[in-house]
Amino acid sequence: MQIDLNSDLGEGFGRWKMGDDEALLKLVSSANIACGFHAGDAVIMTRTVETAKANNVAIGAHCGLPDLLGFGRIVMNIPPRDLAKHTLYQLGALAAIAKVAGHKVTHAGTHGVIGNMAAENHEYIELILDAFKAFDKDLAYASAPSGHGFKYAKKIGLRTVGKVFADRAYDDEGRLVKRQVPGAVVTDPAQVARFITQFLDDGTVTAQSGKRVKIDAKCVLVHSDTPGAVEIATTVRNTVEKGGGKIVPFTELAH
Amino acid sequence: MQIDLNSDLGEGFGRWKMGDDEALLKLVSSANIACGFHAGDAVIMTRTVETAKANNVAIGAHCGLPDLLGFGRIVMNIPPRDLAKHTLYQLGALAAIAKVAGHKVTHAGTHGVIGNMAAENHEYIELILDAFKAFDKDLAYASAPSGHGFKYAKKIGLRTVGKVFADRAYDDEGRLVKRQVPGAVVTDPAQVARFITQFLDDGTVTAQSGKRVKIDAKCVLVHSDTPGAVEIATTVRNTVEKGGGKIVPFTELAH
Amino acid sequence: MQIDLNSDLGEGFGRWKMGDDEALLKLVSSANIACGFHAGDAVIMTRTVETAKANNVAIGAHCGLPDLLGFGRIVMNIPPRDLAKHTLYQLGALAAIAKVAGHKVTHAGTHGVIGNMAAENHEYIELILDAFKAFDKDLAYASAPSGHGFKYAKKIGLRTVGKVFADRAYDDEGRLVKRQVPGAVVTDPAQVARFITQFLDDGTVTAQSGKRVKIDAKCVLVHSDTPGAVEIATTVRNTVEKGGGKIVPFTELAH
Amino acid sequence: MQIDLNSDLGEGFGRWKMGDDEALLKLVSSANIACGFHAGDAVIMTRTVETAKANNVAIGAHCGLPDLLGFGRIVMNIPPRDLAKHTLYQLGALAAIAKVAGHKVTHAGTHGVIGNMAAENHEYIELILDAFKAFDKDLAYASAPSGHGFKYAKKIGLRTVGKVFADRAYDDEGRLVKRQVPGAVVTDPAQVARFITQFLDDGTVTAQSGKRVKIDAKCVLVHSDTPGAVEIATTVRNTVEKGGGKIVPFTELAH
Repeated sequence: MQIDLNSDLGEGFGRWKMGDDEALLKLVSSANIACGFHAGDAVIMTRTVETAKANNVAIGAHCGLPDLLGFGRIVMNIPPRDLAKHTLYQLGALAAIAKVAGHKVTHAGTHGVIGNMAAENHEYIELILDAFKAFDKDLAYASAPSGHGFKYAKKIGLRTVGKVFADRAYDDEGRLVKRQVPGAVVTDPAQVARFITQFLDDGTVTAQSGKRVKIDAKCVLVHSDTPGAVEIATTVRNTVEKGGGKIVPFTELAH
Repeated sequence: MQIDLNSDLGEGFGRWKMGDDEALLKLVSSANIACGFHAGDAVIMTRTVETAKANNVAIGAHCGLPDLLGFGRIVMNIPPRDLAKHTLYQLGALAAIAKVAGHKVTHAGTHGVIGNMAAENHEYIELILDAFKAFDKDLAYASAPSGHGFKYAKKIGLRTVGKVFADRAYDDEGRLVKRQVPGAVVTDPAQVARFITQFLDDGTVTAQSGKRVKIDAKCVLVHSDTPGAVEIATTVRNTVEKGGGKIVPFTELAH
Repeated sequence: MQIDLNSDLGEGFGRWKMGDDEALLKLVSSANIACGFHAGDAVIMTRTVETAKANNVAIGAHCGLPDLLGFGRIVMNIPPRDLAKHTLYQLGALAAIAKVAGHKVTHAGTHGVIGNMAAENHEYIELILDAFKAFDKDLAYASAPSGHGFKYAKKIGLRTVGKVFADRAYDDEGRLVKRQVPGAVVTDPAQVARFITQFLDDGTVTAQSGKRVKIDAKCVLVHSDTPGAVEIATTVRNTVEKGGGKIVPFTELAH
Repeated sequence: MQIDLNSDLGEGFGRWKMGDDEALLKLVSSANIACGFHAGDAVIMTRTVETAKANNVAIGAHCGLPDLLGFGRIVMNIPPRDLAKHTLYQLGALAAIAKVAGHKVTHAGTHGVIGNMAAENHEYIELILDAFKAFDKDLAYASAPSGHGFKYAKKIGLRTVGKVFADRAYDDEGRLVKRQVPGAVVTDPAQVARFITQFLDDGTVTAQSGKRVKIDAKCVLVHSDTPGAVEIATTVRNTVEKGGGKIVPFTELAH
């Protein structure tokens, strides 16, 4: 079993930090890097890209809403065509930084509530994925396999990989429980270990209701701002490796 | 005589406009496009790039300081290494938008007081030009031929073209008179016509003191926010063409 | 008949302008001043307050969403308690600038889509009005008399005045037709003159359907960014004065 | 001996945190609160003000440059008249939030490199202090007693109190050693304890050169973002109290 251990990184801004990027970049196999809209700036992006390269971590653009104050977690009724342009802007900025640093952006995705917005209005994710593909047809896309974005990415010929969240609770349809709901964010390493063991075992996660739900995923995400993220990521890595699996970069798994 | 007629465009932000981009894009042969730091946003950048393409206008990244409020015209004591990263970020963002729009960024430069900052501290422009070259060694660079940036760009092997400003007064050393000085900004089309005629004639401009100064340039810039910019650009174009010259894109002149 | 002629002013940002504030401040009796979130900055606010004072124009805080790029016209799912704090912040900033300029903020309201957000979720406007009152119980509040904000302001004891929009189309319930709908924004002075004449005559406006709708208002708003705003404001003023009415500041009408 | 223990607080932004405000607000007697320009936002300001009130901590406006990315620590060549307006804007915003929270802003000052800018150009601090006084003549002002601001504040009749920095090295003229210089920031609690003991003893600090310099101060500042700030503040408080001194709010000491 090959698993990509993935995390959202570079989420500081100016002098503000978020998450222990240094430690996580020694654990993960791929990083989704904030691109200056919900978080991140060119200095932080450069440092994150360089550290990722030094650790053989695959990098992707983590494109967010134009809202630093809300960290891209506030739904904005922005026209889909405009959001796709903002997304392309971010992807291009990271790609340039990566190129000069001798690394390469090999995947791209959306941050925060863009996923929720896209669930309500497919045009959001379709236009964004169109822009990703028009920029670089070889980019891979990781997301919840039940979502529209996953299907659309396949349809337009982007390589995809299913994503499962190690630090979030699920509902019966295999969707993330909203952050506001109690128990939505999982911070207990033992619970994460059970989650990963079961997932590696039979490809299921147990929803809040107790129901087992199948998730077709090879990319396991840990949010860098979840309390105890480094311990959670370590737990995921150890659980995978103890189970005979291997942590490999994202891009080797997308197809 | 072949002349590039160049302008700084796409300098609105959100709902704010600056300059008559539509009209200028029918007159100029090259456009320096704001990239979201001192002005511009992904939506405006896209529109500007698409209109430039439709009018066969060459495009470049006009990289500014991270200061919307000050429009990149306030000196900031930002570390040169950081500014070079912000500049690369902007260039990459525009390059991605251009690529998806079927156009290509063929030149890059700096906006506002970065020139002044670079005159005081060469490291600013050297690191920026290094980043330009590392991103795309075929980019051209236009600037005042007396400046350090021009020489450094040549030294590292970037193609260059000298730039002269049709709407600004000069001093005896061939440098721009600072905006605060009376007469620094020229808005009278008749004065512009005389300026261009003389420049095409013998390659000189008349400084505020009356002295004639040689400027080795083929790129004539009109600021889109100078009052009467469209009339000034029209005057430059007509004067060049009446004198038997030809307006050609920037990139055909850089070497 | 006493009418307040009201406009949204100070909507530039940095070097960007919007609307002809100088001309409008000679026509209106009250101004809603942008406070730095959707538009405006401390320099523009100061200039607007000082010019308003010189022209005996009453001033109010025009509090917007924290979104310069979207000009406060993009719905954001921001927590109501947070938005009320951002609103209070803006009001306090303007009040300080006014105090030092020898003027006084006598009304306050919300800009852009906050009205739409409040129609969906009353908590938005209730918490904002609570904050207005807690800051200064003598502030007046102008809004569409059919809206929840108007009723709630009365309930908590703020002085109110009904507002009618001279440059916008109405629906059968006396609500503004959304900006996206054709004909929603009225720019023809003749149409404005008929609108005002009828309104002064019998207190009604004619909805897009042709139906006459009663609006209990004494504050007539002209948006400074509507094309032809100065002409529209002049038309309103002339129509009121020709009809024997008088243009008086907002604050003399609120009760 | 009465000493005010003072700290710069509320320096997060959106979801980003900086410093342990909760812990520091239990130790300090006064807080300088970031007002949304270099750091802080209305939500954080409200929380900080409310917690300060609950802990009987005096509050002041900590006005910064309009530069979130640079945290107000990058010199900007902004016109002094404009900076004074931005400063007043921030003070007014905090004053409104404080009023509604049942607290009161009793002092005001400048953040980051504004002090350095004012040392080069007195107009910066003079116009800012003029604005403070015009807004509220009872505001107190704390700063290094050797600086021009301190003298000017006295001259225009603002109450003042000298300030000494517990976590920074001094030069022979009693000025702060610049942050870039090795040893400029002091993080060792034992060194802080010696510093405070000596300061309480004879009113001197030992400069980097070894020279003893007199500082006429009663306000001891600890930066909340200095590593170990809570321990440093605890050390200051304990050292003062063990020496028979008393920690009292800022405003009881200004005169």
